[in-house]
Amino acid sequence: MEQPSPTLWTKKDLIGIRELNRSEIECILDTAPQFLAVSQRASGIKKVPLLQGRLVVNWFHEPSTRTRTSFELAAKRLSADTLSMTASSSSHVKGETLHDTLANIEAMRSDIIVLRHSCAGAPHMLAADHSSHIINAGDGRHEHPTQALLDAFTMREARRKISGNPVATLDGAKVALIGDVEHSRVARSNIFALTRLGAHVTVCGPVALLPSQVEKLGVHSTTRLEEALSDADFIYALRIQKERQGSGLFPSIREYVKLFRIDRDSLRFAPDHALVLHPGPINRDLELSTEVADGSRSLVLRQVTNGVAIRMAVMHLLANSRTRQ
Amino acid sequence: MEQPSPTLWTKKDLIGIRELNRSEIECILDTAPQFLAVSQRASGIKKVPLLQGRLVVNWFHEPSTRTRTSFELAAKRLSADTLSMTASSSSHVKGETLHDTLANIEAMRSDIIVLRHSCAGAPHMLAADHSSHIINAGDGRHEHPTQALLDAFTMREARRKISGNPVATLDGAKVALIGDVEHSRVARSNIFALTRLGAHVTVCGPVALLPSQVEKLGVHSTTRLEEALSDADFIYALRIQKERQGSGLFPSIREYVKLFRIDRDSLRFAPDHALVLHPGPINRDLELSTEVADGSRSLVLRQVTNGVAIRMAVMHLLANSRTRQ
Amino acid sequence: MEQPSPTLWTKKDLIGIRELNRSEIECILDTAPQFLAVSQRASGIKKVPLLQGRLVVNWFHEPSTRTRTSFELAAKRLSADTLSMTASSSSHVKGETLHDTLANIEAMRSDIIVLRHSCAGAPHMLAADHSSHIINAGDGRHEHPTQALLDAFTMREARRKISGNPVATLDGAKVALIGDVEHSRVARSNIFALTRLGAHVTVCGPVALLPSQVEKLGVHSTTRLEEALSDADFIYALRIQKERQGSGLFPSIREYVKLFRIDRDSLRFAPDHALVLHPGPINRDLELSTEVADGSRSLVLRQVTNGVAIRMAVMHLLANSRTRQ
Repeated sequence: MEQPSPTLWTKKDLIGIRELNRSEIECILDTAPQFLAVSQRASGIKKVPLLQGRLVVNWFHEPSTRTRTSFELAAKRLSADTLSMTASSSSHVKGETLHDTLANIEAMRSDIIVLRHSCAGAPHMLAADHSSHIINAGDGRHEHPTQALLDAFTMREARRKISGNPVATLDGAKVALIGDVEHSRVARSNIFALTRLGAHVTVCGPVALLPSQVEKLGVHSTTRLEEALSDADFIYALRIQKERQGSGLFPSIREYVKLFRIDRDSLRFAPDHALVLHPGPINRDLELSTEVADGSRSLVLRQVTNGVAIRMAVMHLLANSRTRQ
Repeated sequence: MEQPSPTLWTKKDLIGIRELNRSEIECILDTAPQFLAVSQRASGIKKVPLLQGRLVVNWFHEPSTRTRTSFELAAKRLSADTLSMTASSSSHVKGETLHDTLANIEAMRSDIIVLRHSCAGAPHMLAADHSSHIINAGDGRHEHPTQALLDAFTMREARRKISGNPVATLDGAKVALIGDVEHSRVARSNIFALTRLGAHVTVCGPVALLPSQVEKLGVHSTTRLEEALSDADFIYALRIQKERQGSGLFPSIREYVKLFRIDRDSLRFAPDHALVLHPGPINRDLELSTEVADGSRSLVLRQVTNGVAIRMAVMHLLANSRTRQ
Repeated sequence: MEQPSPTLWTKKDLIGIRELNRSEIECILDTAPQFLAVSQRASGIKKVPLLQGRLVVNWFHEPSTRTRTSFELAAKRLSADTLSMTASSSSHVKGETLHDTLANIEAMRSDIIVLRHSCAGAPHMLAADHSSHIINAGDGRHEHPTQALLDAFTMREARRKISGNPVATLDGAKVALIGDVEHSRVARSNIFALTRLGAHVTVCGPVALLPSQVEKLGVHSTTRLEEALSDADFIYALRIQKERQGSGLFPSIREYVKLFRIDRDSLRFAPDHALVLHPGPINRDLELSTEVADGSRSLVLRQVTNGVAIRMAVMHLLANSRTRQ
């Protein structure tokens, strides 16, 4: 494989999409296809030696299977060594701070730290004080940048395939984000990514779950699913956070399903070509019907496939950036 | 190492011994010795690159050290990348189904899935709907095929060594399976494997723990240990499932030990050449005395050694079968 | 990299410093620098193939992040395959003994076992009966030999750097060990290592936390911090074991901090060139002030860096010793 040239990339870390401009986002998206090809090699040898002998540490303070697995696999397919630290196995039981733990990991010559934390801002705080490359794998309600990148990549890939234009962009694409936008880091990161890539975003959900001034982010807002879907090219169903039930903000599941579920009935509001995404794991038949999730209009599994490639691209770009402090 | 030619193998998965004919079982047994040699290399480099760049996922829904470790090591000695998922770390806490989790893992381009599950039939159900190679590492009371394969391999190896005949088979070998046959997936898989390889199997245990129509599987059944051992070439002590105590089916431990424990006293019923096996981990001095387990007639540790080689053989055969859907 | 010649090393295991003579300790220290260089390679490829295809098993019966991580990383940088077993994931839930578990791991052809256990003597007991190379990663209050080796290495390295003499030793170096010496395996191993390397050791702490006959180990003992620090080249702050609070032996935290904390005030008792070490993780502002821990006189993170190199050296020496049984 020809080594991708990370000429456009100069940032040490990936903390949020908000900090990226359009050319930086496109740099990542444009680096991913060659890594997608690695995972699909007919020979079965799904690896490249680009990060051989480097150390990637997965440091997850919230439970996660798919995101952690995706990052771990991305690191292994770049031939990096990997270490996993979970909050329970870490020195937190002994009262060590995040800074101390990271300083220790760095003293062992780590290269990339993948951090998931329930506190918004934790990755940013650590990135400012440490020389490791930090990748935010989700921080509180703040951002989940690799999710938004793989979502944007998947929409762009579908658009290119459908249009037959191999350099088609998301300019003018219409995306409906459905659900609990207020509490979703996935929604926030997607709004930043999609608007910067030229897409038109409409957010839709119960009024209490739409951010009060979401229009300031350059998106349209509605509580009517029919309106949101009417001209959508892509429909993105957010995951219901069941633990918010009973908080007074969230409607009953029954009411949510009736008004906002993406299923065969509600898809009638949308154009025939509209495709469906979801960040996973799906609450089947709550925010998304099984029929649609597993149907021909679903990009859900393609998102998962693309996620590994996007994370390989991000790791490769960070590790080879010129700006490591 | 010369690459073994998996010409005889055409199945995508290894779900149970019941589905295998004699030549398929022998294909696996005959593939194992070269992998046994890999683990015993004087150079210390106990690896071959046969699965380099492939992904083996260990997906265990029941606790296990030795089986999980054996599979993980087998994968590493084939140079595969490995991922571990346990039930607690997986998305089950978020209510994801087995199908969804597997579909996601497959979307990341996994090759082999090693599944242990408390529900009989789970591996079969997944294998039918997914293109990954599924290896059943134990499902409920149904089957534990790699255990039976390593057991048969170990008996055949001992027979070849003792007879001096390097192509000796298990035809006519007499095997006594002692203990809770009714609830044991190990016993079931062994009965299928041994009878197909031409051995004569006698099952022996408390009457409530012997399947009611076990003779239909081609085995002899008795509740008298003396009878079961009288002409045994191999004595296989099953593990007592202590958790079944008090269910009304199981006798007291004290009574079981008195009537069915394999120890110096009960071995007097058996021929002098009879050898002893156990699937591990041993409840020492319950189903098997320490003296016998650690003595010269025990094949227990040889089973463990052979287990890695058998699992390497199975992974190699599956990954190179021509029938991947 | 030139392969280090382990000519001086003949032991199968590393159980404690007590069993090592000066030339054996120096053999390990002298083997470490080339591995330190591996971890710091500008190319980023921080690996050597010295243990390729060997199996290192991390077997931890007490929680640990940094020690376990350091060993795992050391094994990976030697290109070994690694397996992790924790007490909870192991067969202990099924009542298996240490001996049985190790016999099973060995039957799978393991090479090096890294063992942490709360019982003093557990590694010794296993090493006597098994052919694997056993490395004690901390056993009860007994020893933590790799910690003492990395500490001695770090002090010797600092002495060489400061003196400009690249072969300077610890002969005549003055080391103050501060804290709960009585219950500390780190203190015990350090006392053995440092005295054998020619250093003068003073232990200092509350009288109830100093071993009653510690002078027999060749060290000076005092309860006055001012006296202990007065001529120290190196000040080693031990970790407060908070769980000992309320045992009647340990003073209040407040009193301990007042009398024994290493901070800007207490450092006034010490020579200006004195440097500070700590085994980590630090109870910040209890036994060691944040200001000193993060200041220019602290060797704390250098200890962590050196720990990986020392553990690589130990694994390399053991695996290539001539005396494997």
